[in-house]
Amino acid sequence: MEMTMNAYVTGLARSRPLAPIETVESRLRGFIDGRIFDRPTLVLDCDAVVAKYHALAHGLGQGTLIHYAMKANPAPEILRALAAEGCGFDAASRGEIELALAAGATAARISFGNTIKRPSDIAFAHAHGIDLFAADAEAELDKIAAHAPGARVFLRVLVGATGADWPLSRKFGCAPDTALRLMDRAAFLGLRPVGLSFHVGSQTRDPGMWSDTLDQMAEIWHAGRARGHDLNLINIGGGFPAFYGDPILEAETYAGRVGALVRARFGDATVMAEPGRGLVAEAGMIVAEVLLVSRKSEDDLCRWVYLDIGKFSGLAETMEEAIRYQFVTPHDGGETGPCIMAGPSCDSADVLYEQRPVHLPMALQSGDRILIKATGAYTTTYSSVGFNGFPPLDLIVI
Amino acid sequence: MEMTMNAYVTGLARSRPLAPIETVESRLRGFIDGRIFDRPTLVLDCDAVVAKYHALAHGLGQGTLIHYAMKANPAPEILRALAAEGCGFDAASRGEIELALAAGATAARISFGNTIKRPSDIAFAHAHGIDLFAADAEAELDKIAAHAPGARVFLRVLVGATGADWPLSRKFGCAPDTALRLMDRAAFLGLRPVGLSFHVGSQTRDPGMWSDTLDQMAEIWHAGRARGHDLNLINIGGGFPAFYGDPILEAETYAGRVGALVRARFGDATVMAEPGRGLVAEAGMIVAEVLLVSRKSEDDLCRWVYLDIGKFSGLAETMEEAIRYQFVTPHDGGETGPCIMAGPSCDSADVLYEQRPVHLPMALQSGDRILIKATGAYTTTYSSVGFNGFPPLDLIVI
Repeated sequence: MEMTMNAYVTGLARSRPLAPIETVESRLRGFIDGRIFDRPTLVLDCDAVVAKYHALAHGLGQGTLIHYAMKANPAPEILRALAAEGCGFDAASRGEIELALAAGATAARISFGNTIKRPSDIAFAHAHGIDLFAADAEAELDKIAAHAPGARVFLRVLVGATGADWPLSRKFGCAPDTALRLMDRAAFLGLRPVGLSFHVGSQTRDPGMWSDTLDQMAEIWHAGRARGHDLNLINIGGGFPAFYGDPILEAETYAGRVGALVRARFGDATVMAEPGRGLVAEAGMIVAEVLLVSRKSEDDLCRWVYLDIGKFSGLAETMEEAIRYQFVTPHDGGETGPCIMAGPSCDSADVLYEQRPVHLPMALQSGDRILIKATGAYTTTYSSVGFNGFPPLDLIVI
Repeated sequence: MEMTMNAYVTGLARSRPLAPIETVESRLRGFIDGRIFDRPTLVLDCDAVVAKYHALAHGLGQGTLIHYAMKANPAPEILRALAAEGCGFDAASRGEIELALAAGATAARISFGNTIKRPSDIAFAHAHGIDLFAADAEAELDKIAAHAPGARVFLRVLVGATGADWPLSRKFGCAPDTALRLMDRAAFLGLRPVGLSFHVGSQTRDPGMWSDTLDQMAEIWHAGRARGHDLNLINIGGGFPAFYGDPILEAETYAGRVGALVRARFGDATVMAEPGRGLVAEAGMIVAEVLLVSRKSEDDLCRWVYLDIGKFSGLAETMEEAIRYQFVTPHDGGETGPCIMAGPSCDSADVLYEQRPVHLPMALQSGDRILIKATGAYTTTYSSVGFNGFPPLDLIVI
């Protein structure tokens, strides 16, 4: 199995220089400017995704398995390009497995990383040769043993609070003592407990924030080995940040620091990473339109700016104003003022930024084109099927 | 125009007895029990929607125009049945206008109630004979005047906090003084300012909560008439509650009280209402499956229950745990314990109820069918296009 793994470790020899973000932006602008779009559209630069993949792979170091968290953006063009470069895929469902296979990924390059699986999806994965599954509960191990007998499993552990911009909920993972019990249980069921996984939280901008979590994981790891389990895979999940305005490290530098922290604790174990946002967010730019600029009353200090895209058609990640997207307008450079921003639907929850208004040009008006930067992740897939008669976000991959 | 309006006022002569909610539930259960569903599915009872329409119409009284807020559930079967009964439609976009027309509604029965419209959508509506538009800003009036010259407009007013379970944001409507200014502006642009609209907020369970808002509206109404505007339409929006566990009044009784409050202030003006949730929520039941029941550690007090449906595939209204859906399991009646509930996706935000755990049977296990009551509104349309490879909520109308 290790041979199969090593057959698709990141191809460092093929590493290319990473396109600087300014270059990606100017390439996207070059495509967008002068073109007419009849509805909100995400334009995604495939080369930028591939370059980011190589940067993360190079940073994390020789032997790292990168499994793209395709939920961030499963555009077939992106999946094909990543598969061709040797990237693996983390799938959460039969639907995602089918997409990865269709993109040319072999079963050995696909992990079924969801801890909540339909039994029929497990059987589907097993029938297609997929051999690596996540679990965090006994009942899940029972399902895997029944539908993918003899498979490799890694146990997801619930780690304490980290310094991520958006710490995760307690949804995934089990307590450390339970993880050890589950290793025993997996072996008893004829499965092969090969490792551990965790997730530091999305947008963890400081690589130092990984240390505590890695210490906790190493403790469980050594306890598991002491119990006789041949652990050889440490899955560090995602958390690689994208640039939304707050400073982040350059991708390769960031990955290098995280890789060093991991190797200091896990030696020659196989390291797996599951970047999603970190690979695709900065590669995309949404083209949208201003539908209305107004004030609620004459003495209103804030203007309201309504776009033709909102929470239900691509910008769901503005929820709780977590992500502060950056905007480009035709009037940039002119005088600005505070704006509350909202989407086009008849839903009062479809407000993008209200707690912390966005400063936009005073000259902005209905009909203006507006570009939304770093929107390659969690936009097309979070779109509703067509709430209020507005179609889902369109996508063009260049 | 009044003649056209009166031609489709609610047909009270055709009023039928409202199906009690127990009857609707047993009809839905009769259809569901024993059937196999291969993915999460909403089963919707068309007769129950029609019966609720007649109950609201009868309660609100002779002459009320009911325009279904189709965003709640635009299933073609529902739209056709409502259109056949004389119900009108509130549309928010070209997409919704097309659905209403396809269902057999005439243009006179369709209002374009979104205050944020694409200019091309206004032109589309105008070309199809739609003559009634909402606005809350000068720039919107400009668009309407340009693309639907001479149209009737009603001005949406921003009202103060009410007693709704979910008060609306400030997204829609303008301040009272602005509403008066906009009436003048509409007339200046050759449009016909015919009335006012507002929204008390979703799930306003106490009809008495409408009084303050109606008083505010009446003040603006009389000021507008004093300025010479021939106002004849008061659009009271939605807010009609559905039963999610907390007690509500029977629909006709509730509507009767609201109707009396409105007529006491607006006399013989035409009353328009835009129920969405109030018409369809109780008519639907989702069939789902338990994928996993687990505890994070052996001494965990709460179990985690993971379903095959979550925030991204139909249950978006659990956001902030606002709606407390009610569940039916095969083990009801047995001993229960607290559960945190979550969806199947690899997204840590896909948690349904965590702040206030749900009590479910101790015997509940992976593979059990679970029914979710009163899910006819804002479920199919809030579904994502297929986040994480999970398909959108399926729909069967019976």
